[in-house]
Amino acid sequence: MCAGPAAELGLTLSVLAEAEDASAALVVPSAPVGAHTDAEAVRRFAAACDVVTFDHEHVPPEVLAELVADGAVLHPHPEALRFAQDKLAMRERLTALGIPCPRWARADTVSDAEAFGDEVGWPVVAKTPRGGYDGKGVRVVATAAELSDWLERAAGAGTGILLEERVPFRRELAVLLARSPSGQAAAWPVVETVQTDGICTEVLAPAPGLDPELGARATEAALRVAGALDVTGVLAVELFELADDPGFVVNELAMRPHNSGHWSMDGAVTGQFEQHLRAVLDLPLGSPRPRERWTVMANVLGGEYSELYPAYRHVMARDPGAKVHLYGKGVRPGRKIGHVNVSGDDLDDLRERAGHAADYLRGVVTQ
Amino acid sequence: MCAGPAAELGLTLSVLAEAEDASAALVVPSAPVGAHTDAEAVRRFAAACDVVTFDHEHVPPEVLAELVADGAVLHPHPEALRFAQDKLAMRERLTALGIPCPRWARADTVSDAEAFGDEVGWPVVAKTPRGGYDGKGVRVVATAAELSDWLERAAGAGTGILLEERVPFRRELAVLLARSPSGQAAAWPVVETVQTDGICTEVLAPAPGLDPELGARATEAALRVAGALDVTGVLAVELFELADDPGFVVNELAMRPHNSGHWSMDGAVTGQFEQHLRAVLDLPLGSPRPRERWTVMANVLGGEYSELYPAYRHVMARDPGAKVHLYGKGVRPGRKIGHVNVSGDDLDDLRERAGHAADYLRGVVTQ
Repeated sequence: MCAGPAAELGLTLSVLAEAEDASAALVVPSAPVGAHTDAEAVRRFAAACDVVTFDHEHVPPEVLAELVADGAVLHPHPEALRFAQDKLAMRERLTALGIPCPRWARADTVSDAEAFGDEVGWPVVAKTPRGGYDGKGVRVVATAAELSDWLERAAGAGTGILLEERVPFRRELAVLLARSPSGQAAAWPVVETVQTDGICTEVLAPAPGLDPELGARATEAALRVAGALDVTGVLAVELFELADDPGFVVNELAMRPHNSGHWSMDGAVTGQFEQHLRAVLDLPLGSPRPRERWTVMANVLGGEYSELYPAYRHVMARDPGAKVHLYGKGVRPGRKIGHVNVSGDDLDDLRERAGHAADYLRGVVTQ
Repeated sequence: MCAGPAAELGLTLSVLAEAEDASAALVVPSAPVGAHTDAEAVRRFAAACDVVTFDHEHVPPEVLAELVADGAVLHPHPEALRFAQDKLAMRERLTALGIPCPRWARADTVSDAEAFGDEVGWPVVAKTPRGGYDGKGVRVVATAAELSDWLERAAGAGTGILLEERVPFRRELAVLLARSPSGQAAAWPVVETVQTDGICTEVLAPAPGLDPELGARATEAALRVAGALDVTGVLAVELFELADDPGFVVNELAMRPHNSGHWSMDGAVTGQFEQHLRAVLDLPLGSPRPRERWTVMANVLGGEYSELYPAYRHVMARDPGAKVHLYGKGVRPGRKIGHVNVSGDDLDDLRERAGHAADYLRGVVTQ
């Protein structure tokens, strides 16, 4: 999704692709094939780039260290990126900064887990510090025994498990911003993210009915995190909104264009992929102003159709105002394979339209 | 400028490029080098494409005929395209359709020109039927003698010269629409185009203060032209607005994304490059609805700077809401090398901002 803005900005984008027919490889001028875990492939790729950035957090730290030693220009820098790669490091750092977090602990043993759960109340939320996404690597457990397999594996690797209290939140919010190497930062309006079975299915931009004071405090916290961690590029800060003080806690960080920001591709003066490119190149940032009153983003999850084209045509014809973005990825049930943005004045109408288009593409509705 | 939308639509775009370092070649996955006048190069290129379209009108008819014989799928079809390639053919056809035109005549001799000028009044506007753009191939002449060189050359080629009365217009307008092979058509709001020395410098979308009835009639006329000529893809119909009946006459036709539609890239739900791709692929067309009250487009003309990057950074930093599109073309004085779009509620403010950005990039202002 950077390919469009890169062309608009006159940049020549190169992608380290998983395979020759990877979806990104089909729309950029250069896409050498290689695994993000293969140090030699990544180093060869980076040597041909002016600036290197990331579309996920899974490049191993030891590969990143080699790139730094090679003199590659990485944005975000590995020193920042590790707080998005390692949830325990993230919790330690945010707590030190005074950013509101759920109560949390590192557990290495079953008795660590027992102690934490007895203190904050069961059930608790357990997370593997690395490699999780879209609900993977997360477990809600009612007893410490339910974690014994994870704890055993973590003990072998010496990584520990992150435990968090289960926060009784009102809803989920996200602050998305971009920050450049010279320190300029710009935040989009706070959005509401709607999750189903641990996967974000809908984003409402801006978050309806949000207390402006809470929105300002959340945005200030996110900007402070970005500055303190020296984040470059897009930073997504996922929040739980609370009924009581402090009004929110931070759930997760991501240092890349993020699902919660897909609405901005059509709904804001500057979309998150354009802004990410501007940020990592240290170009002046663009305005994050929404172009319309509301934009609703609905994720398209893999479903009935292995061949999406007929459904795509149907959705385009049914709603000419819907912006359908398909990723060209293979369809697997529940996998995010695209999203739909719809903008306008009537939030209920937009939710119905975005949801219908996403459901149709999934095959959940057939008319 | 199709590269961004093509990536978004998941299309693999190939461009027949003038040179390996042509600006388009740097942002698309495939860009074989060849001249649009070289039949073999064009045929080889087309053989590898599902659908072929055009970014100018200058591919020779005999090359197009070879492509048709090869079975290439061309949109627009040469049968339609010739009315954008040949201004005499255009005038004949529009007149037959009853579309308002300035009074016109074909002149092959000085005495033809004398007769026309004496009938409609001097000065008259003379146009070479083929190959003109941005004021090139157009002359305003006070006597027939001023055309003797053109008439001599036209007599050799057997092409004639198009003569038109000089219309006392209020302002210039344009209707932009897209039409697909299956006949679906969608028009953007009528815009005002502001010309300086024969080159469009500014577009106001929608045209301020336009009589809605006139706008509707102009749009209806453009849709009728598109249908009658079987245009596929984007059609731009440039108009002169008149104080008296019939309210407008058609000035020019273009069958491709057009300068008068650049505002739509940022200002409409569906921009003209996306819509052109949807149209030529016979995908359902997207909504042409403007996202904001006004969008102003200012063309960036080549000026003082051969290296635009510092000025580009300055403009981005000065006005984060300005969308600056640079084409990566070599800078020549007066050449269109980019454009700036600005959207919002205050038309005067938008004109000032778009104009300032364009002037700064040209080097006309330095702060």
